[in-house]
Amino acid sequence: MNAGVNAPLKSGPTGGNLTFPKLGLPELDAATHEEMYQWASDLFPVCRSLTGDGVRSTLKYLQGIVPGIVSHEVPTGTRCFDWEIPQEWNIRDAYIIGPDGDKIVDFKNSNLHVVGYSLPTDQVLTLDELQQHLYSSEDQPDAIPYVTSYYTPRWGFCLPHHIRQGLRPGSYRAVIDSSLKEGALTYGDFVLKGQSPDEILLSTYVCHPSMANNEVSGPVVLAALARWLSSLPERRYTYRFVWVPETLGAIAYLSRNIDVMKENTRAGYVVTCVGDDRVYSFLPSRFGNTLADRAARHVMGGSQPGYLEYSFLDRGSDERQYCAPGVDLPIASIMRSKYGTYPEYHTSLDDLSLISAKGLGGAYEIYRQALTLLEHNFRYRNTILCEPRLGIRNLYPDLQRKEISDDVVPILNLLAYADGDRDLIGLCDIARVSFRRAIPLLQALNRESLVECVKE
Amino acid sequence: MNAGVNAPLKSGPTGGNLTFPKLGLPELDAATHEEMYQWASDLFPVCRSLTGDGVRSTLKYLQGIVPGIVSHEVPTGTRCFDWEIPQEWNIRDAYIIGPDGDKIVDFKNSNLHVVGYSLPTDQVLTLDELQQHLYSSEDQPDAIPYVTSYYTPRWGFCLPHHIRQGLRPGSYRAVIDSSLKEGALTYGDFVLKGQSPDEILLSTYVCHPSMANNEVSGPVVLAALARWLSSLPERRYTYRFVWVPETLGAIAYLSRNIDVMKENTRAGYVVTCVGDDRVYSFLPSRFGNTLADRAARHVMGGSQPGYLEYSFLDRGSDERQYCAPGVDLPIASIMRSKYGTYPEYHTSLDDLSLISAKGLGGAYEIYRQALTLLEHNFRYRNTILCEPRLGIRNLYPDLQRKEISDDVVPILNLLAYADGDRDLIGLCDIARVSFRRAIPLLQALNRESLVECVKE
Amino acid sequence: MNAGVNAPLKSGPTGGNLTFPKLGLPELDAATHEEMYQWASDLFPVCRSLTGDGVRSTLKYLQGIVPGIVSHEVPTGTRCFDWEIPQEWNIRDAYIIGPDGDKIVDFKNSNLHVVGYSLPTDQVLTLDELQQHLYSSEDQPDAIPYVTSYYTPRWGFCLPHHIRQGLRPGSYRAVIDSSLKEGALTYGDFVLKGQSPDEILLSTYVCHPSMANNEVSGPVVLAALARWLSSLPERRYTYRFVWVPETLGAIAYLSRNIDVMKENTRAGYVVTCVGDDRVYSFLPSRFGNTLADRAARHVMGGSQPGYLEYSFLDRGSDERQYCAPGVDLPIASIMRSKYGTYPEYHTSLDDLSLISAKGLGGAYEIYRQALTLLEHNFRYRNTILCEPRLGIRNLYPDLQRKEISDDVVPILNLLAYADGDRDLIGLCDIARVSFRRAIPLLQALNRESLVECVKE
Repeated sequence: MNAGVNAPLKSGPTGGNLTFPKLGLPELDAATHEEMYQWASDLFPVCRSLTGDGVRSTLKYLQGIVPGIVSHEVPTGTRCFDWEIPQEWNIRDAYIIGPDGDKIVDFKNSNLHVVGYSLPTDQVLTLDELQQHLYSSEDQPDAIPYVTSYYTPRWGFCLPHHIRQGLRPGSYRAVIDSSLKEGALTYGDFVLKGQSPDEILLSTYVCHPSMANNEVSGPVVLAALARWLSSLPERRYTYRFVWVPETLGAIAYLSRNIDVMKENTRAGYVVTCVGDDRVYSFLPSRFGNTLADRAARHVMGGSQPGYLEYSFLDRGSDERQYCAPGVDLPIASIMRSKYGTYPEYHTSLDDLSLISAKGLGGAYEIYRQALTLLEHNFRYRNTILCEPRLGIRNLYPDLQRKEISDDVVPILNLLAYADGDRDLIGLCDIARVSFRRAIPLLQALNRESLVECVKE
Repeated sequence: MNAGVNAPLKSGPTGGNLTFPKLGLPELDAATHEEMYQWASDLFPVCRSLTGDGVRSTLKYLQGIVPGIVSHEVPTGTRCFDWEIPQEWNIRDAYIIGPDGDKIVDFKNSNLHVVGYSLPTDQVLTLDELQQHLYSSEDQPDAIPYVTSYYTPRWGFCLPHHIRQGLRPGSYRAVIDSSLKEGALTYGDFVLKGQSPDEILLSTYVCHPSMANNEVSGPVVLAALARWLSSLPERRYTYRFVWVPETLGAIAYLSRNIDVMKENTRAGYVVTCVGDDRVYSFLPSRFGNTLADRAARHVMGGSQPGYLEYSFLDRGSDERQYCAPGVDLPIASIMRSKYGTYPEYHTSLDDLSLISAKGLGGAYEIYRQALTLLEHNFRYRNTILCEPRLGIRNLYPDLQRKEISDDVVPILNLLAYADGDRDLIGLCDIARVSFRRAIPLLQALNRESLVECVKE
Repeated sequence: MNAGVNAPLKSGPTGGNLTFPKLGLPELDAATHEEMYQWASDLFPVCRSLTGDGVRSTLKYLQGIVPGIVSHEVPTGTRCFDWEIPQEWNIRDAYIIGPDGDKIVDFKNSNLHVVGYSLPTDQVLTLDELQQHLYSSEDQPDAIPYVTSYYTPRWGFCLPHHIRQGLRPGSYRAVIDSSLKEGALTYGDFVLKGQSPDEILLSTYVCHPSMANNEVSGPVVLAALARWLSSLPERRYTYRFVWVPETLGAIAYLSRNIDVMKENTRAGYVVTCVGDDRVYSFLPSRFGNTLADRAARHVMGGSQPGYLEYSFLDRGSDERQYCAPGVDLPIASIMRSKYGTYPEYHTSLDDLSLISAKGLGGAYEIYRQALTLLEHNFRYRNTILCEPRLGIRNLYPDLQRKEISDDVVPILNLLAYADGDRDLIGLCDIARVSFRRAIPLLQALNRESLVECVKE
């Protein structure tokens, strides 16, 4: 017998032994998948833009699902880093009447028909004059393209190329009943407290008119995640949910919250393009090595091994701001078909037929798994030296033969690397055990006092 | 002339200049290969188990080869980390008499016929009752499988499946003349002092009944290595040789010696499955990056480039304890056909025909090379700035033509990287020179005062 | 509005904001390519050796191109690290007169005919006696091989193997009108001051008789680089140009200058074998990770993606000394066909037909690009948080559609990684932008005060 026999393993840097996390693995929740599709259908027709009432009504709808969402207004003229909040834009109606007196383009049919931030107008033009204000796509002649002009004053209409080609010379009346006035940029957020002030950021955007995968999928999946996390009896992390107009909204949000976010954010995701059912995509953070990246890769590698991993050079949403030099938040993005890569992107073809309860649900479940992994992502350590006696704890077969039970190998491999030096993701990676299998096994080992968790 | 001309290179961390190692490369020793096979043949019939007289007689035999081996007894009931030493088991005879009065299974023919740690018994049973106590393998119908039940009281017999299938209904008498009593777990060790208290650990196990590759190959190769190292005029390292029952023996050994072993062990190997002549195998340590791993890979990569490298996740012997979290010894394993991977493993087919003098000898020579490399594994450094004048030391051709002598290139490459920052393994790896070639060249350069070694 | 809004990014380690480099990308300079070939033609006939008047006249010629070159003499007997400067060798004439009275070998036809450092002689010999002093190559029967014997006294002649085979028995007279006396080893250097004492070392050698790719290409490309750098209105770095006899000259140079060179050298190249037009080659420094290596790889990877990268183990010129342990200068080598790899190497076949203005010019331009990259190789950093508003600076399209301008992506990618933590090479590598494109874009961003450079 010697000093070594009962010597405890080295203590982790934070000393204490935490309560072992009780959160179980989420089970597939098909009812929520269907609900999300209904919410998307309700939000699809709203004419959202960088500012204006479409954003407000979208947030109001989401508050019906997540009552904690708070709506904020940033007044026109407010400086946000290098930017300034522009005038607020609203639109009531818009159309073009052709030489025959027919409405050949009508905002009431699709809010994509009007260039975003179009000035008000009501004038009669020749076809040649009108052409200067028309936008269409030769490559997709049946689609209405999505066009905006936030920072240069102009007006314009978007329409399918085949309709534009059928226009005959004559006299056209173009009417846009819009307004551009002092007002505000509107966004919503919801901070859900956890046991720790450490935060997970989940951000999406609410500035696109009627498009489904990009964008209504994002706000509805984020609402479902917020509702689920709110329902848990306890949470390790504090969650910050953000619904902002893309780019300027994220910049405005950061300009108001950067200090607390830099202090507390441990991981996060931009939730966008999460509605179709073609592929899973992953866009890493700026250096691809944050906790958010590691959790996403572990979850997707295990459940969606054919997922597409992009480079940060392929970025295009609010990770551009969250990961900017000097902001440096650990933010990645788990998506279905990524913006810019699918043919319907930024056209009227990105409609409700492109997304589905299954598509939204797949993204929802992957995010729940990633967040569950983060909630469990402590460092774990053995409580005893050498292998423990699993047999007396019903964790090992009592008769040793050539064959060994399937459960013993992952247990021994988890114990072999549970040295308090690596977090759960690192432990699962090196022991080659999925977190789905590791979490219940570690919980069982903890009940036998063989493993404890160390504060990360 | 300036200050730089005669400036010495930077001193290594330990300052002094050590004596250059004199040990030469080992030459193939065929006589020892034959001796080892004889020792294996002598030890094969002994009925070893976790405890008992079989272990004692095995150690006694080995003391005839390595007189320094000390035998130790750990009493029943002793606590060893999470474990407790069980009762001691001994067996004198065992058999089953069939309905015709014939002995259908007889311990005297093979000690594998009895489940290890079987309780004593003498009873008459029907065939159906007897079947509850029989073990055989459908996949290997001619083999007696190896089965133990150390920690759950039971009795049983192992037999070839084809014999079991031929049993007719009737009355059977099962006799096991064994005892399970207070006693001890027995192990042996031998600490061979070197110039330094730094230790190399070489460990094997002595708890399997009549099987050849796994296990008698291990104890005999270890004995030969101990005899060879004892015969050297000087050794840099202290060597700790260990013969223990697997798992519990290693845990008991660590519980008594962990402090000194953690303090002193620089490298080590579990010597097991070193008798057949099919492949070479390597099982790395827990993170695969210790001195033991590096030396093994350098030696095997150079001489056995087709060797199989396993993962630590494939482990199965006492590296499970030596490399456990909190123990963290730098222990790997060089093997021939690894346990669990060859068809005869843990059956009566793993007999003396499976191993050979050549198979044992191949493992012995690889281990001698790895240990020689470790003995030479200092950091080496140039004594002068820029390339030295090799010509005046007969190390360079005096006439310079397009062709250059084969010896000059490795000399210049060793000198180019002998900067005192890397050990011999690192130097050989980066200069792409085998240690077999590097050792005599460095000794020649040292005789010319061009290279010195720095304490590691 | 919060504290974060106008907070500056973290300062770089040196605090201040440097003047942004104004140097533009070099444009192809065909006139210099032609000049270099003329210089090579002028220097080709000179009989250079380790010491002697051939080195002096070569340096004198180069001073006509680069007036700043200073010639230095290291006296016979001077100790240089492990070496000593030998006697100086000069030669006026040499020939062999055959049995028929014809000059069968004549130094006046090729200075390669005499073994370098041959003792003076004038004697009559039989063919058998003469054969002991002849050198030829069976593999290249038409070539005169290049042979020297600097440190062992002997004399000899080199000749095509087919001529040697035609020699008939008889009486031969061998005459070498050479001298071996106290004298000096001669070398030249030129230190061109820049804004910083940090130095770039560019070194070549001047000790080979009439051979073109190896060696006159090196001295002439180095002269052209020195002339170009001298012509720039400002330089960040101080440049040290060195023309030395290979090996001993470099060792002598280091023995006199090692302290200042170790203190100041930030990168450098051995300029050799830069005349033919077959391939580009790269020989890295000892560990392959210095600024010189990084700059060379970035430039060559972008412009000569099929270049050959050798290992430092393939080294053979003065990087052997500059990179030696304890010297440790960051020196690599960009070459055309590397010494030792092309069939004409070290024979009379390496003549002026092997090199060309185009071959010399290609090397010259690659070196100018690498040096331009080094001049610009500061760390760059964003001046603001989040993405800047490029539209108001005419760097972004004002109408946002699905398609995006080709210029915007590299600008945004440079900004995304311009965090002051990586130098220009690292920035270009991670943002996947060539330095040729990055330099003008960063200059444009600097004019808009969006990017500043931080002292490296």
